[in-house]
Amino acid sequence: MSEGENFTLFSTKPSPSGWKVAVILEELGLKYKTTYLDLSTGEQKHPDYTRLNPNGQVPALVDHRNGDFVIWWGPFVAGFCLCRVDLLILIRDSGAIFAYLIEKYDVEGKISLKTLEEKTEMTQWMHFQSSGQGPMFSQLFYFGWRLQERVPVAIKRYQDEFVRIYTVLEGVLMNRERQGQQWLVGGKITAADLAFVVWNHFAPFLASGLEGGSFSLKSEFPHVAAWHKQMTERPAVKHVLDELAALNADLAMLNEGWR
Amino acid sequence: MSEGENFTLFSTKPSPSGWKVAVILEELGLKYKTTYLDLSTGEQKHPDYTRLNPNGQVPALVDHRNGDFVIWWGPFVAGFCLCRVDLLILIRDSGAIFAYLIEKYDVEGKISLKTLEEKTEMTQWMHFQSSGQGPMFSQLFYFGWRLQERVPVAIKRYQDEFVRIYTVLEGVLMNRERQGQQWLVGGKITAADLAFVVWNHFAPFLASGLEGGSFSLKSEFPHVAAWHKQMTERPAVKHVLDELAALNADLAMLNEGWR
Repeated sequence: MSEGENFTLFSTKPSPSGWKVAVILEELGLKYKTTYLDLSTGEQKHPDYTRLNPNGQVPALVDHRNGDFVIWWGPFVAGFCLCRVDLLILIRDSGAIFAYLIEKYDVEGKISLKTLEEKTEMTQWMHFQSSGQGPMFSQLFYFGWRLQERVPVAIKRYQDEFVRIYTVLEGVLMNRERQGQQWLVGGKITAADLAFVVWNHFAPFLASGLEGGSFSLKSEFPHVAAWHKQMTERPAVKHVLDELAALNADLAMLNEGWR
Repeated sequence: MSEGENFTLFSTKPSPSGWKVAVILEELGLKYKTTYLDLSTGEQKHPDYTRLNPNGQVPALVDHRNGDFVIWWGPFVAGFCLCRVDLLILIRDSGAIFAYLIEKYDVEGKISLKTLEEKTEMTQWMHFQSSGQGPMFSQLFYFGWRLQERVPVAIKRYQDEFVRIYTVLEGVLMNRERQGQQWLVGGKITAADLAFVVWNHFAPFLASGLEGGSFSLKSEFPHVAAWHKQMTERPAVKHVLDELAALNADLAMLNEGWR
């Protein structure tokens, strides 16, 4: 780690949750280094990593700027051999990383809002993303692509969830448009919107299995498509998605499906 | 709603997430009325409810003490016919409800902690619960009980997740014990622990399908069992679980499996 990097992000090349954190780090102009764990060799279950993240999954984030702080009750530090990790903050699950980064490093409210009510609205959507879009899209990917056995009833279940989640977002964004707005909360882009952008980016891949490949995301969810497009045009988001594409050649077609 | 009730909780009789919110309301001594929606008739998809909660799921919470606040950008209020709802806060997904209640109504820190680092630790576990335990246990219930078709590969997947989640908790709680502690964060009971108690309560039911019914939660996860037992002995938790039992006669055996 060079002196200039204030965070270490533990991720994997294809993992949406890791890229999701990268989006927020980029948006806030924070300098970070990404360590990609190799899931095929089980690196995420290696004691050096599970001491850091007992859940044994990515992402995790290490904040070198908060090095004076030690989670003293945490058993996760001892023996962790990452150079210059003074520890610090151990954050599992990207939702918690979002909340931390915003609270600590978005003092000016570039991508967040500050009243309790506004923060609550943001939190709602971040939870909708992390307990809805994230896990349900993952299940669809598992049954649709990773599992060799074909289980139509499971694929159908998660395709339905996929459509349901975008139907909720489409309805809300349509109402926002009627109010002259285009973002989920507070009339401006926030982390609540940005939380969705990476899984949105993977959505065309997931949708390719619907209706024999003829399902059109843009026709079914035009407001979601416009919302997603606006996000992908932001320099920070574009940078992350370009890096994602560079490291995952097989996923190059992703955004096409929203066009 | 009587004058004494400050919140309306929209829930369903068997829904863990609704009961999860009730636990926090009880712990904080907040007065609330519960409206149980009938999922069998699709009440949660009725426009009167989806205007309040566009996700069309329970729970949702209405805070009558914050009646001066209106989410003006929200399209969810108009036409909602609940008596005396001045609206207020619209909260989907119990994780966000937790965060709101703690921030606003747990000023003395009865079940929460106050530094950013402590709050972040709490948030981690609440996300682990809401994006891990909640959705994965729900999938196990769906494939193990609700779906008529038997899909062994799906049941196995979610049984493995069930075991994995408790293995993570067991490891962490074992480490806490070595440090002379018994709770997840900060050496005291917080909402981070309480977030798990309702799904823990349902765990024996879910575990009854493992290893032909011979799987022993208490033997496999002794620290989790002790942690759960301590929570169930708290008057607020006991009150909620008793009410849950009274309204769900078929689930009466639940806690037995932890003993």
